[in-house]
Amino acid sequence: MIDLPRTVDFDGRKVILVDQRKLPEDLVFFECEDVECVAFAIKNMVVRGAPAIGATAAFGLALVASKFEGGRDELLKELRRAAELLRSTRPTAYNLFWAINRVLEGAKGSSPDEIREKIIGEARRIAEEDVENNKMIGELGYRLIRDGYRVMTICNAGSLATVWYGTATAPMYRAYEEGIKFEVVALETRPVLQGARITAFELSRAGIPVKLIVDGAAGYAMSELGVDLVITGADRVLRDGTTYNKIGTYSLSILAKEHGVPFYVAAPTSTFDLNSGPEDVKIEMRDPKEVAFIGGRRIAPEGVDVINPAFDRTPPSNITGIITEKGIVERPLDEGIRGLFSRSRGA
Amino acid sequence: MIDLPRTVDFDGRKVILVDQRKLPEDLVFFECEDVECVAFAIKNMVVRGAPAIGATAAFGLALVASKFEGGRDELLKELRRAAELLRSTRPTAYNLFWAINRVLEGAKGSSPDEIREKIIGEARRIAEEDVENNKMIGELGYRLIRDGYRVMTICNAGSLATVWYGTATAPMYRAYEEGIKFEVVALETRPVLQGARITAFELSRAGIPVKLIVDGAAGYAMSELGVDLVITGADRVLRDGTTYNKIGTYSLSILAKEHGVPFYVAAPTSTFDLNSGPEDVKIEMRDPKEVAFIGGRRIAPEGVDVINPAFDRTPPSNITGIITEKGIVERPLDEGIRGLFSRSRGA
Repeated sequence: MIDLPRTVDFDGRKVILVDQRKLPEDLVFFECEDVECVAFAIKNMVVRGAPAIGATAAFGLALVASKFEGGRDELLKELRRAAELLRSTRPTAYNLFWAINRVLEGAKGSSPDEIREKIIGEARRIAEEDVENNKMIGELGYRLIRDGYRVMTICNAGSLATVWYGTATAPMYRAYEEGIKFEVVALETRPVLQGARITAFELSRAGIPVKLIVDGAAGYAMSELGVDLVITGADRVLRDGTTYNKIGTYSLSILAKEHGVPFYVAAPTSTFDLNSGPEDVKIEMRDPKEVAFIGGRRIAPEGVDVINPAFDRTPPSNITGIITEKGIVERPLDEGIRGLFSRSRGA
Repeated sequence: MIDLPRTVDFDGRKVILVDQRKLPEDLVFFECEDVECVAFAIKNMVVRGAPAIGATAAFGLALVASKFEGGRDELLKELRRAAELLRSTRPTAYNLFWAINRVLEGAKGSSPDEIREKIIGEARRIAEEDVENNKMIGELGYRLIRDGYRVMTICNAGSLATVWYGTATAPMYRAYEEGIKFEVVALETRPVLQGARITAFELSRAGIPVKLIVDGAAGYAMSELGVDLVITGADRVLRDGTTYNKIGTYSLSILAKEHGVPFYVAAPTSTFDLNSGPEDVKIEMRDPKEVAFIGGRRIAPEGVDVINPAFDRTPPSNITGIITEKGIVERPLDEGIRGLFSRSRGA
C-alpha cells in the first residue's frame, strides 16, 4: 500500500519535511531548526498542500517553544512573532491560519514549561488528527469509486499534501485496499506541476494505475476517454461551499458540469472558513518566474507580463459534494455545511 | 508593425524555415536541401501551424522538382514518393494534404522542365495566397475587436503558424494598425508551449500588450479579469463547422460558452475538409516525452503512462463563428460553410 514517509514530522528539535521540490527524482528530507526556515519552506513550496502547511506551521510554533529559554511573557511574545511570520507565508490556504490559531489558543499556563508542553502537544495532536481525518475521508468517500471507473484529479491533494494519506487520494487509497479496479487521470497542473511530479509519483508507488495529461487535455479526456468522477482537494471552503483550490480547479468544475461528471471536493473540516465571504479571501499571486521559466530555462520572451494566480474559486453550483471526515456534504451545500458544524458542535 | 521574417520560404535550392524550437531565445533559420529534411522539420515541429505546414510541404515538392535530373516519368514517381513521405509526418492538419494534392494536381506537362516549372509556380502561389488570405482574415475579422477588449487565444495561430501574418492573430494585427486599444491573454499551451514561446513573442514584438497565463487559468481569467473575445486557429474544419485544433481548444470553448464569451475560429478555406466526418479524422498522439520532460528535465516519474493528444475536437455548438478569407461564417455554421464554398465555386 501507500509507501511514503510522513510528509511533516517533528522530533522535538527539528521540523522534518519531505522536500517536494526534488520530487519525483529524489525523495529527500528538508530539516528546519528555526521558524524562519519553516516559513521559508512554506513560502517556497518545500511543503505544500493545505493540511500539510497547517501541520508544518503548528510544528513551527512547537519548534519555537521547544528551543525557547526565558520567561513566560517573553515566550508568548516570541510565539506571537513566529505566528505572524508563519501567517505571512501564504494567504489562501485556510489550514495555515486554523492551525496557528489553534496552537496559540492552547498556549496557556503559568510557566514557560507548561506552555511549551501544551504547544508541542497541540501541534502533535493537529498532525495526528490530520491522519485520522484523512483515513475517515477515505472510509466515507471510497464508495463513490466503482469498478471500471476513471477518476480525475488536479494538483496533489495526496499524502504529500497532508501529514499522511491525503484528502482527494484517501478515497482512492481506500478503494484500492478494497480491491476496486479503477484508474486515475492526473492533470499535470502547471505551473508547479504537482500533478506530474507528486500525484503521479505517489499513486504509482501505491500501485494505482495513473495516466498523466496536460491541463488542456481535461476536456478531451472527458469527451473522448470518458471520466466517471472528479475528486479535488481544497485550500479553503466557505460556508456556502465556495471552494478555493489550485488554479485550474474552477475550469475543471465547468468541464465536469458540461460532461455530467460528478465533481467532489475532499477536505477536512479544518479547511472550512465559516466566517469569511469571497471578498475576504485573498488569492495568492505568485512569482511570474514560475510560469516564464521551467527547470531554469526561459520559455517566455523577456519582459512579457505574466498573471500567475495560485488558486481559483469554484462556486457551489459546480460542486456535487464535499467529502469531510464528518460526513459527505450533499447539495444544497450551504445547508449541509451548516448541519455538519452544528452536529459537531453539539457532539 | 509585425517585425518577423517569412516563416517558410524557398530560394530555388533550399527550403528556409524559422526554427521554432529555438524561440523565444533565438530567431534562427533551419534550411533543408532535400525532402527528407523537410519531412523531419514538419514531424519535429521545427515548423508548425496548419498553413505553415501546408506551404512547407508544397515547397518540399518544389525542392524535389528543382533538384531532379532525369526523365518525366521518373520525376512524377519521385514526386509521389516525396508526397507520401510528407503526408506521413502529421495526420491532423488538413492544409498538409490540401497543399500536397494541389501541387501534384498541377504537376502536368510533357517534359520534366515543364512539370518542374509548374510545381515550383504552384508552391509559390500557395505561399503567396496564404499571406493574402491572412490579410483578408485580418480585414474581415478586426471589427470583432473593440477598444478596451481583452482577447484570449491558445497555442500559436500567428505569423509563425503561417507563411506570414497569421490567422487568429490577423484580426489582432489589423486592429492594432487601426489604433484599437486591446490586450491579448495568451494561454501558454502545454506541452509544447507555443503560446508562451511563440505567441507571446510575436505579439510583444509587434507592440500588442500580451499577458501570459497557464492553461489552467483560462477559467479564472474569464471570471475574474473578464475576457471579451476568444480567437483560435484551426488545424482542420469539417463541413458542419467541427474544428480540430490544439489540445485545450475544446476545453476553452466550453469555458467561453459558460461565461458568454464569443468564441471565433480563424482559418483560411484551405483548412476546410468538406469530405470527412469525425470518424475519418485521426487525432495525432505525440511522444509522451513531450509531457514527461521539460528542457531535458524529467517532471513525471519514470514509467508513468502519459496520454498526449496533439489536438482536440470542438463541436459547432461551441463556436460563434469562423473567420475565413472569404467571409465570416455565422451560425448555423453548416449552412454558412455550404454558402461559402458554393459562392466560391460559382465565382
